[in-house]
Amino acid sequence: MDIQNIGFVGLGLMGGSLSIALKELNKSYHFIGLDHNEVHAQKALELGLVDEVVHNIDSLCHCDVIFLSVPVDGIISIAQQIKPLKETCTVIDLGSAKAKISNSIPSTIRSHFVTAHPLTGTEKFGPTAAISNLYKDRVVVLCDIEKSGKHQQKVAKTLFQNIGMKLVYMDAQEHDRHAAFISHMPHALSFSLANSVMKQEARNSIVALAGGGFKDMSRIAKSSPKMWEDIFRQNKSNVLEAINAFQSELKKCQKMVENEEWDKLNTWMTQANKLHDIL
Amino acid sequence: MDIQNIGFVGLGLMGGSLSIALKELNKSYHFIGLDHNEVHAQKALELGLVDEVVHNIDSLCHCDVIFLSVPVDGIISIAQQIKPLKETCTVIDLGSAKAKISNSIPSTIRSHFVTAHPLTGTEKFGPTAAISNLYKDRVVVLCDIEKSGKHQQKVAKTLFQNIGMKLVYMDAQEHDRHAAFISHMPHALSFSLANSVMKQEARNSIVALAGGGFKDMSRIAKSSPKMWEDIFRQNKSNVLEAINAFQSELKKCQKMVENEEWDKLNTWMTQANKLHDIL
Repeated sequence: MDIQNIGFVGLGLMGGSLSIALKELNKSYHFIGLDHNEVHAQKALELGLVDEVVHNIDSLCHCDVIFLSVPVDGIISIAQQIKPLKETCTVIDLGSAKAKISNSIPSTIRSHFVTAHPLTGTEKFGPTAAISNLYKDRVVVLCDIEKSGKHQQKVAKTLFQNIGMKLVYMDAQEHDRHAAFISHMPHALSFSLANSVMKQEARNSIVALAGGGFKDMSRIAKSSPKMWEDIFRQNKSNVLEAINAFQSELKKCQKMVENEEWDKLNTWMTQANKLHDIL
Repeated sequence: MDIQNIGFVGLGLMGGSLSIALKELNKSYHFIGLDHNEVHAQKALELGLVDEVVHNIDSLCHCDVIFLSVPVDGIISIAQQIKPLKETCTVIDLGSAKAKISNSIPSTIRSHFVTAHPLTGTEKFGPTAAISNLYKDRVVVLCDIEKSGKHQQKVAKTLFQNIGMKLVYMDAQEHDRHAAFISHMPHALSFSLANSVMKQEARNSIVALAGGGFKDMSRIAKSSPKMWEDIFRQNKSNVLEAINAFQSELKKCQKMVENEEWDKLNTWMTQANKLHDIL
């Protein structure tokens, strides 16, 4: 497994943090970056996240590995633009919704691709948000892995494992449904919570009264609108189903409070406590 | 301000952590505990959270300070049982909903009471959950403080400040409305989230896919059903109003995803990002 040149399309939190982790692993890797935001590209160069910046995808075709760490729409569009790749090239995309990506990669280059979802992130974005341990001890879901070439499977697994990640395998459709419930819908809640509270409450009351619970629940409302617009678009039907399921539970809670069914409410909350046995 | 004996009604997370903080402040305080749960009372004695355990509220009447750290219902019931207190006795309740407490204390002892809401906690409960720095650097809201005696005001302010808390003053009604939006409704969301996800998702998917966002949003779903049943009861109308306000934002989000109004959704999420400027 001979890797020298590693390309990054997208030099934000995810790409930048990955380059830091890989550089710590092997100082001899040469990193080449591409970002349509010129300010981000220059900042990434300045911060040493990449050794070189290029301006079009063709300039990455000689790379041994190319990471696509841009929103899902961007990944799909880049997959259409990629010219024939050298046989040993591995393209790894890091999108949060996988089925549309997995199905839209042209069949001529499908085996080069490994579609991965690293379950990590912070609410911050851009190259200055990059941190060294973003990936360590976190899970990466590899989707439809049987569609990737043997060499590409090996490269992706080795790199992710070497930066301390745990591998999980899933069908892309199945991944998207799970992700809608466990990640995407909770983001919709957090955005809704932030907006409802800011509409009703003055800044100083929020500062005075926000305990750990509110801070935790509203943290991801600070996430990138560009990225989340894209995830909601790519995983629309699953996200809507998850929002529905949540609404039906909240309505249940509302009715029990309204009707003063305290024992029933207590049982329902005790049920929720069971999450403790899982996480 | 001469304080020797401090009583605690309720020896769980809040009372236990308070006794640890006060003991660190002054080793000469003598702590007397009361808890209707005998196992908790014995455990608190074992852990050194109290120096002595008593079995009825009358046995606390000689105390200089009595903390009531039980659910709101319990506080209201205890306020009815308290016998005439010595002039310098200060009773401080730590309930999370304040208007019903503030209004139900018999007028003969109202000036002895300081109704406080310390904005802190963890999802854990019971005396074994007590930790030393639960109160440090957190806010405590003192409600309807003008109804407390001058001496009692001074005792409460001094003790809370000495354990590192920041004081905020509010009318009890106003407090309850703010708390519904910033603390109580978010708990209803977290319980609903946990229940909707556990219904749809298998344990292993939750473990595999739960990132920081889900963990943060579901953490408070592990909170005590007894305590939260009580808060929802005591602050019912405000909680229902806050749930309504949240539902209307979530519905907005749902409609925008359904109708693929991505620009509008982006603007709405950008609005939510503004929380970043506040917290």
